[in-house]
Amino acid sequence: MVSGPSSLSLRTHTCGELNVDHVGKWVTLCGWVQYLRQDLFVILRDFSGLTQILVPQEESASKVKADLCDLTVESVIMVTGTVRKRPAGQENKMPTGEIEVLAENVEVFNVSKKLPFEIKEFVKKSESLRMQYRYLDLRSSRMQKNLRLRSQLVMKMREFLCNEHGFVDVETPTLFKRTPGGAKEFVVPSREPGLFYSLPQSPQQFKQLLMVAGVDRYFQIARCYRDEGSKPDRQPEFTQVDIEMSFVDQEGIRTLVESMLQHSWPAEKGSIQVPFQTMTYEEAMRDYGVDKPDTRFNMKLTDISDIFSSTQVEFLRSALDQPEGSIQAILVPCGAVRRKPSHEVHSLLTDRTGICIFLYVSMSKLFPSFVFDDRSFSLEETQPGDLLLIAAGTLHSRPLLGSLRLQCAELLESHGRPVRDPLAFHFLWVVDFPLFLPKEDEPQELESAHHPFTAPLPEDTALLFTEPHKVRGQHYDLVLNGCEIGGGSIRIHRASEQLYVLKNILKEDPSQLTHLLEALDFGAPPHGGIALGLDRLVSIIVGAASIRDVIAFPKSFRGHDLMSRAPDTVSDKDLTPYHIYVKWPTKQGGEEKRVSCSPSKMHIPSCK
Amino acid sequence: MVSGPSSLSLRTHTCGELNVDHVGKWVTLCGWVQYLRQDLFVILRDFSGLTQILVPQEESASKVKADLCDLTVESVIMVTGTVRKRPAGQENKMPTGEIEVLAENVEVFNVSKKLPFEIKEFVKKSESLRMQYRYLDLRSSRMQKNLRLRSQLVMKMREFLCNEHGFVDVETPTLFKRTPGGAKEFVVPSREPGLFYSLPQSPQQFKQLLMVAGVDRYFQIARCYRDEGSKPDRQPEFTQVDIEMSFVDQEGIRTLVESMLQHSWPAEKGSIQVPFQTMTYEEAMRDYGVDKPDTRFNMKLTDISDIFSSTQVEFLRSALDQPEGSIQAILVPCGAVRRKPSHEVHSLLTDRTGICIFLYVSMSKLFPSFVFDDRSFSLEETQPGDLLLIAAGTLHSRPLLGSLRLQCAELLESHGRPVRDPLAFHFLWVVDFPLFLPKEDEPQELESAHHPFTAPLPEDTALLFTEPHKVRGQHYDLVLNGCEIGGGSIRIHRASEQLYVLKNILKEDPSQLTHLLEALDFGAPPHGGIALGLDRLVSIIVGAASIRDVIAFPKSFRGHDLMSRAPDTVSDKDLTPYHIYVKWPTKQGGEEKRVSCSPSKMHIPSCK
Repeated sequence: MVSGPSSLSLRTHTCGELNVDHVGKWVTLCGWVQYLRQDLFVILRDFSGLTQILVPQEESASKVKADLCDLTVESVIMVTGTVRKRPAGQENKMPTGEIEVLAENVEVFNVSKKLPFEIKEFVKKSESLRMQYRYLDLRSSRMQKNLRLRSQLVMKMREFLCNEHGFVDVETPTLFKRTPGGAKEFVVPSREPGLFYSLPQSPQQFKQLLMVAGVDRYFQIARCYRDEGSKPDRQPEFTQVDIEMSFVDQEGIRTLVESMLQHSWPAEKGSIQVPFQTMTYEEAMRDYGVDKPDTRFNMKLTDISDIFSSTQVEFLRSALDQPEGSIQAILVPCGAVRRKPSHEVHSLLTDRTGICIFLYVSMSKLFPSFVFDDRSFSLEETQPGDLLLIAAGTLHSRPLLGSLRLQCAELLESHGRPVRDPLAFHFLWVVDFPLFLPKEDEPQELESAHHPFTAPLPEDTALLFTEPHKVRGQHYDLVLNGCEIGGGSIRIHRASEQLYVLKNILKEDPSQLTHLLEALDFGAPPHGGIALGLDRLVSIIVGAASIRDVIAFPKSFRGHDLMSRAPDTVSDKDLTPYHIYVKWPTKQGGEEKRVSCSPSKMHIPSCK
Repeated sequence: MVSGPSSLSLRTHTCGELNVDHVGKWVTLCGWVQYLRQDLFVILRDFSGLTQILVPQEESASKVKADLCDLTVESVIMVTGTVRKRPAGQENKMPTGEIEVLAENVEVFNVSKKLPFEIKEFVKKSESLRMQYRYLDLRSSRMQKNLRLRSQLVMKMREFLCNEHGFVDVETPTLFKRTPGGAKEFVVPSREPGLFYSLPQSPQQFKQLLMVAGVDRYFQIARCYRDEGSKPDRQPEFTQVDIEMSFVDQEGIRTLVESMLQHSWPAEKGSIQVPFQTMTYEEAMRDYGVDKPDTRFNMKLTDISDIFSSTQVEFLRSALDQPEGSIQAILVPCGAVRRKPSHEVHSLLTDRTGICIFLYVSMSKLFPSFVFDDRSFSLEETQPGDLLLIAAGTLHSRPLLGSLRLQCAELLESHGRPVRDPLAFHFLWVVDFPLFLPKEDEPQELESAHHPFTAPLPEDTALLFTEPHKVRGQHYDLVLNGCEIGGGSIRIHRASEQLYVLKNILKEDPSQLTHLLEALDFGAPPHGGIALGLDRLVSIIVGAASIRDVIAFPKSFRGHDLMSRAPDTVSDKDLTPYHIYVKWPTKQGGEEKRVSCSPSKMHIPSCK
């Protein structure tokens, strides 16, 4: 059987493949009318490109001419004819720009009505219109490329895992049991009164059980669900590349993922270097104020507390005198984006945690004495126009500066000053996370930093029983250009240790996880794995602004399918078998407000 | 990077791969203790096989010996040592039967508690016990093989579609809108009062919309959902190989599927011949009394009405005198399974539709005259002991005989008489289905035989407007060994035709499908596709009795996960965000009865 994109098709060729080598050939093309030009040409489009169809002008071909000239844009036709070289001077640089096809037969499959918008990249359309007519939006070459790149990427990952490394693709259920505390899980009523399935946020339990089952190496391109209400650039269903291996250590999983990404990386996006940079959680927080640093640019945090060790400036003094008090700074080269630099401190703001942030714009290579107690500044050499952001407070000032660092980069770029290379891919492993963190609302209690199945670092295991808050986990996050694109861990494989963590440290009821605890008791191998967020990964690779641009039929940020209008009402009769009814809100609170799609940002004081 | 199943692993080899070529090598194996023999040997198992570990007996290795001899069955260990040739006479025929590994180091990862059942094929265990400890059940070599074969099969299908024929793997949403009349769709409450998503039974609408979007060739290994309550050997979630193509005809899709199955067919199951046999719906009903004939054996239905055209036997006469009256027969060679054949009619039963079925057991090559009006019987030559099943009634007797045909085959096989080759794979296309069928409860109205998007045969299109019940559809079913494993069609690609079918023939409200009708109006290409039931296909390939044997974590026939106990209760608090509450049944009807798992069967009268 013939292979290729035109196998078994009514066409002989695609619209993107004809060139001078095909001149004289009798071909059949199928596609959409991109545009018509003066009854002389029809430009025909399919997923692969465009071909110019020449409308025959002879009397004998009047039927073909009439059929072609009556077409509307986006009508679907099949054209048969001969490939010709274009007359000299009429060629262009497009892949098919040297040829045209003289139409000898036309079949019109469908005449298109007038579209709600044009299928052209440069024609701006609102996101909601694009979503309502998603099948038209997907005709754009950008969306076609995104979907095809995603398909290819996943195919290569599968080949790597399945054919080269003996992984087994196993499908795990999505109708599962509610996870204890799984507040973000959609519920699915069953036909038994009061009993519900739950759509899992990940196949975590199943992948571990598959290791206990001796499957040895599992992967799945897994559909996952998370009900977060309305959050920008999140989807209620998303896809993760889910991997688990037995008899492996951290190093093994990380090397596997690096090689997999290298193997499957789209050729047109350059190549990626392995191994990736690795950084501890502590280093990431210290240098970038965040656990997923964007390492494409510098502007690192620097602790300048010692410069002020004997300062008498009131707010600096009180910042340093508190527990974990410190003064942190980032230097933003050419950060004074407005035209009026001065020597003065421009802004002094105190956030609700009591951290003072102030800005300083450099006019010289040294800092003036009145702020710095007569000491010269050794942080980094500054240039006129550089901006120094200084935060005085507890260590909580780090995340604040980390966030300001990113916002400065955005601000500079919006002013046309390049900070991050848009074509660069900076991968980074972040490791040695704390295994537990204080609960936000009850800081004397601990919760898992990631999930309760993560094993402690071997050298920290003894601390579990004495100082659990000091235990570091065998967890690793994969960061790409400042976005977390994956996370995983070596898991606890002994029942007694898992029970201790659940019961004694997390104070959770272990009875909900009886099946997992039992499984660990019946011969569980050491195992670990990772999950990569496929939507996010692909969106970064193609440079899309949103994951919605790499998903065929995404939901709106409120979780709506604007095309089919889901979710929708369901009749009482249809709910009856599920033994539920709707609890209508008693107070009609008026129309819900449309919340902005852009992530909330801290206001950055501008330099006047 | 090294590839293969031991890449990046703590082990150097798997337990199934060592042979005399490895003698003298220093190896590390990881696995489960299959059994211990007299403090001399430990048999270690992983997914790939077994290796005999020799327990060292010297004083200097007393620690290793103690560690090994203290193990329980199914404990997980890592053993390092040297591969040795077994002493003469101790070899066996297993792949690793010529070697053993002398243990020099042991690490015990986990000591297993006593299992609820043994991991041995021949140890019978109840289905519910297997399901409760599914992770142990999956350790059996049979389940390991099933899961791995499934993974390989799907991988090859993907390679065929994606790499050889330009298909794009596109993920479509599973949180969708309820299909009009979608009584079998699970509902998923959203956070907006009264609004529900629905888990779709197939990506039918999305795959068609992807064709309108110009994706050209789509496939997806798609998770689908169907809430059928308790049905034997059905699963609330299942997987289909979902395919759609533009600019293709029936022939193209069928050839694609044949080539895909040929390409991906497991080598150990022999090869399959293409093209597959094709049969019209009419032929299938006529010869087999069913639209999914098992063509591995003969015993076809034969219309013997003309033999009786002038019969005066009362019940035969009245059968023939009614509209569509006929007398049908199947000949079951050696069908008299009991030892007392006679010339008499053994049983005469009348089912609720008024069809008479009677049996005849042959003692000679001719039939006696008293039944057959003195005419010799020319259906097939009979042999002594053959059984003839005759049904007199309307054409409805065909499905009845079709069902009896299968039950006779089962009965014969249960008596040790082979009818169907258990290693044979008989594929069959059934085509030319009626596009519409009378509704069961309102026979004067029509419903789609498959779904409302199927296009009519071109030569029948005009009948749509005059005699829609006579229209045949461009639908094709793929049957394997008497099971429907796939179905598809060429779709309607013009909005006006689709609207006519929905509104005028099916009397459905087209407003629920506005998005699809609109899409057809904006340049829809001709397109068609198919969906194969992956679970069923794999179960037939591996010869499993149930699809549960090819699914890692299946639900019980009541839809329960017996391992984690899903579905489960959800607190009122957790239901609050979804604006639903549970409607508890007012009458407590006592415990629900456990319904038998075996498909209901018509009673077959035995030959006394």
